[in-house]
Amino acid sequence: MKKTYKITVQYEGTRLRGWQSQNNTRNTVQDRLIEVFSRVAEQKVDVQGASRTDAGVHAYAQVAHFKADLPMDPLSFIQTCNGFLPADICITSITEVHDRFHARLNAKGKTYVYRLWNGPHRQPLTRAVMAYDPTPMDIEAMRAGARALIGTHDFSAFCTKPHGKHSNERTITALEIRRFGDEIRFTISGTGFLYNMVRIIVGTLTEIGMGKRSAAEIPALLRSGVRAQAGPTMPPEGLTLLSVNYE
Amino acid sequence: MKKTYKITVQYEGTRLRGWQSQNNTRNTVQDRLIEVFSRVAEQKVDVQGASRTDAGVHAYAQVAHFKADLPMDPLSFIQTCNGFLPADICITSITEVHDRFHARLNAKGKTYVYRLWNGPHRQPLTRAVMAYDPTPMDIEAMRAGARALIGTHDFSAFCTKPHGKHSNERTITALEIRRFGDEIRFTISGTGFLYNMVRIIVGTLTEIGMGKRSAAEIPALLRSGVRAQAGPTMPPEGLTLLSVNYE
Repeated sequence: MKKTYKITVQYEGTRLRGWQSQNNTRNTVQDRLIEVFSRVAEQKVDVQGASRTDAGVHAYAQVAHFKADLPMDPLSFIQTCNGFLPADICITSITEVHDRFHARLNAKGKTYVYRLWNGPHRQPLTRAVMAYDPTPMDIEAMRAGARALIGTHDFSAFCTKPHGKHSNERTITALEIRRFGDEIRFTISGTGFLYNMVRIIVGTLTEIGMGKRSAAEIPALLRSGVRAQAGPTMPPEGLTLLSVNYE
Repeated sequence: MKKTYKITVQYEGTRLRGWQSQNNTRNTVQDRLIEVFSRVAEQKVDVQGASRTDAGVHAYAQVAHFKADLPMDPLSFIQTCNGFLPADICITSITEVHDRFHARLNAKGKTYVYRLWNGPHRQPLTRAVMAYDPTPMDIEAMRAGARALIGTHDFSAFCTKPHGKHSNERTITALEIRRFGDEIRFTISGTGFLYNMVRIIVGTLTEIGMGKRSAAEIPALLRSGVRAQAGPTMPPEGLTLLSVNYE
């Protein structure tokens, strides 16, 4: 009798091709989990994640679900699977859930952190999880830009491939910018995110921080819906999916 | 006219063969610095470090010195060199010092941190800079063991290859053990350290933490001078040279 399980997964995305299975590689988190789960459970297991993190993006606690008739208790199952998974992926928890649970469709919100090393020199010890830009940045100006992004907007200007048919309206519930020494940390929570949305938001805010554009431009930028008018897509290594929120 | 410079260097040791030049590899920090400094300064430059960190060990701020007649100002020199160095090595500061300065011989003390991930599962995001052991550990018992190590002792029992001729007496000035969530952090300061000494000290303390041995054994262990009676050499990835202290 198959049961439904919710898991949290941590991964360091540097050498991975993102969460989602693709035709041209097997080195995605979803592929790795399906392969190992199917082997250990001795049945075909499908795994669905809450967030389709891109190549190079990390997760502290991605959430996923799968259905299986496990041959052992759930904790032993993930411990066995962790023994087969590569060092950059680890399942950190498992709980049985009701059989209608869906990690992506039931998610009410997600929180991402973008970490930027803003010191005068590269930082080898943290380079896997932080982007690097030594340009001085005005935190207060970036916070003004962030305030203009909070709320419900059409975020087409902050999306690499906006949906033609579907709505590009999303709600950002919180966007905090803090400095820890030479690190600038952007923490963004919202109901959902478009493709590359967090990285483009951070790219636009850093341009405000560097004085290349003004926080006052944000409302017009949102209204324009034109991707080319927003800032650059920041590199993936700075981005980590922190948590997925349900109900 | 050659001047003498003191530099601090950060490196992530995972893919490096340690600080010290060796016959069978060029992938040491010293080799990389000598190669790049000599190329940028257009003269043969030798670089001497304060600590001979082992293969796989990291440094937040290794200190080294070199003598050269630089073709540009010192800050431009290290910025240029950083452009040639691999991503896991970066020079973070440079200052001109008096010409008798020697990074190793003038060092009065060093501080190392050993980071151990003690949670129930591996932690992919921090695996480069922390060792991993899920066994529950008694922090107070380890602190009692640490107190017995502080001070001046013959540390032959905590050294992989004790000197036959030279003194193996060293002074540990501080040894703090703190828990940050599932991380246990050992911070050790001393006048100098024997080969593998920090890693064997942490290996012995973790055995005390796991109840395999008692803190009360430490004085006899120090007196024995027998390496085989101490705990295991912990893996290199948990160890980081934090700072070197002068004057």
